Amino acid sequence: MTRRSTASVPELVARAREGQAGAVARLISLVEDASPLLREVMTALAPHGGRAHVVGITGSPGVGKSTSTNALVSALRRAGKRVGVLAVDPSSPFSGGALLGDRIRMQEHALDPEVYIRSMGSRGHLGGLSWSTPQAVRVLDAAGCDVVIIETVGVGQSEVEIAGLADTTLVLLAPGMGDGIQAAKAGILEIGDIYVVNKADREGADRVRRELRTMLSMAQRPEGAWKPPIVKTVAQRGEGVDELVREIERHEAWLAETGELARRRAARARHEVEAIAVATLRERWGELDGDSGLDDLAARVAAGEADPYSAAEELLESRAWAQRA
Amino acid sequence: MTRRSTASVPELVARAREGQAGAVARLISLVEDASPLLREVMTALAPHGGRAHVVGITGSPGVGKSTSTNALVSALRRAGKRVGVLAVDPSSPFSGGALLGDRIRMQEHALDPEVYIRSMGSRGHLGGLSWSTPQAVRVLDAAGCDVVIIETVGVGQSEVEIAGLADTTLVLLAPGMGDGIQAAKAGILEIGDIYVVNKADREGADRVRRELRTMLSMAQRPEGAWKPPIVKTVAQRGEGVDELVREIERHEAWLAETGELARRRAARARHEVEAIAVATLRERWGELDGDSGLDDLAARVAAGEADPYSAAEELLESRAWAQRA
Repeated sequence: MTRRSTASVPELVARAREGQAGAVARLISLVEDASPLLREVMTALAPHGGRAHVVGITGSPGVGKSTSTNALVSALRRAGKRVGVLAVDPSSPFSGGALLGDRIRMQEHALDPEVYIRSMGSRGHLGGLSWSTPQAVRVLDAAGCDVVIIETVGVGQSEVEIAGLADTTLVLLAPGMGDGIQAAKAGILEIGDIYVVNKADREGADRVRRELRTMLSMAQRPEGAWKPPIVKTVAQRGEGVDELVREIERHEAWLAETGELARRRAARARHEVEAIAVATLRERWGELDGDSGLDDLAARVAAGEADPYSAAEELLESRAWAQRA
Repeated sequence: MTRRSTASVPELVARAREGQAGAVARLISLVEDASPLLREVMTALAPHGGRAHVVGITGSPGVGKSTSTNALVSALRRAGKRVGVLAVDPSSPFSGGALLGDRIRMQEHALDPEVYIRSMGSRGHLGGLSWSTPQAVRVLDAAGCDVVIIETVGVGQSEVEIAGLADTTLVLLAPGMGDGIQAAKAGILEIGDIYVVNKADREGADRVRRELRTMLSMAQRPEGAWKPPIVKTVAQRGEGVDELVREIERHEAWLAETGELARRRAARARHEVEAIAVATLRERWGELDGDSGLDDLAARVAAGEADPYSAAEELLESRAWAQRA
């Protein structure tokens, strides 16, 4: 495929829109590598977005996120949908070997031309995943995916981020994960649009559902707000997955009817613009020299001659960086 | 303690410098709450920093980070050192119940006036822990701590961050954590100044050490670079902890002799200034109205009328936000 490297951006975008997997892969690589071509790519993609329904899947390690994603892809394929999957791994040095296994489990769909699967790592660049994930979504969206699933490792701050990225956020729980719900309630009660109790054939599944229902019922919700349903699944055997798809569709319809979809997407675009602006600034700050340069300011702070606030203020006021490089 | 709420910043700082625990706690709360007084606090603290040796402890869940921290605090106390501990939890909805238990284990030192223990959560504010942790270190440093230990949950991107915050980074491993080393090597080989194989009385500890040694020996290091030692501990019984303290001191001496300490602290100050500048900008962007306001730009991006790069560029060029509010 020597053409790959020589294809122009408009060509690549045109091929991706036709659904050519190679072009889609190449565009996502440009995103991950923070390629200088990216701006051109995004300009070309901008008019072709907004069709895909973005579904986020999160939960603690071990609840069955990848198995559920896999089952969901199968169900969506049966319904004739084109599906994109972004498996987001904040490239943890400690994430262990799980992800590789997860990807192998997804191989079931590897040969299906209507399914794109991609693992996203931050590769350590400035903006990180908050920067690259929404842009990868844009690529899959423009490539005609009806549904884009973002699966994140449920640790650190990633769930909070996924709630900002997705139209519909699924929070997965499973029995036997310790006293998870009580401890986790503060965060998960805020982000889930649909709760999934996976491994529902195991002991304790009903208790998990009961506790979750009690806690959800106590949440203060404004009039007309979405009431997150709880779906029981055994993803490994595909049980409950059709109901899950129905609930996702019900939520999708609710989002459209109430105008909430537009609100969420504006919020998502806001995060995206902000992340790009911040990454751009960091790059420019790094290149600044002289008294208002970040290195000089840092040296003064390290020496106790300036406090970090004054230094930050000086950095912002130097303004040289506000212009395009 | 009604005086607390009325004490002026200079009073609080003076009391913290005398080692009054109440004043230290109050100052760290101002950091966590991103109080408007914080700038004044940091100006007052700036000349009093740079004494404490900052030790980062990281590793996968279950390797014994808190037990090791506890044992390290005991050893440092026997040597007559004043110690601060920041237990950093990226306020994960899924972090489970472990942290509470960890804090309870630390109660052994709760009544020791020469030990400050504090759990840090991001409380969801803009800059997050990358913003608040270095400032909490400043408070403990100014309060006369000889050593400040930062303990982080070893997940997500937090180890990378801790390597930027600490003078000496300890990476903990333990046998029986799966095929951890092979999978984790990419990240941990870069950040550890000292490797600790904890639970060294368990089967497999020697294999972990052997594998680690092999991998460390393969790393390319420049002439005169620090060679990370491997220390075996059974933190629960305090075994190996004195040797660990000696290795920390040896690293501290090496940092000072080679000028690496100054380099690391300048890099730390750089991150800190950058994080404050970014948080400040985000706040100002949030307040902008009109065509270059973030909300309007986001609406155009969401509607497909603009790509996120052009919107970010427009945001940066609007410049109104570059001035102090």
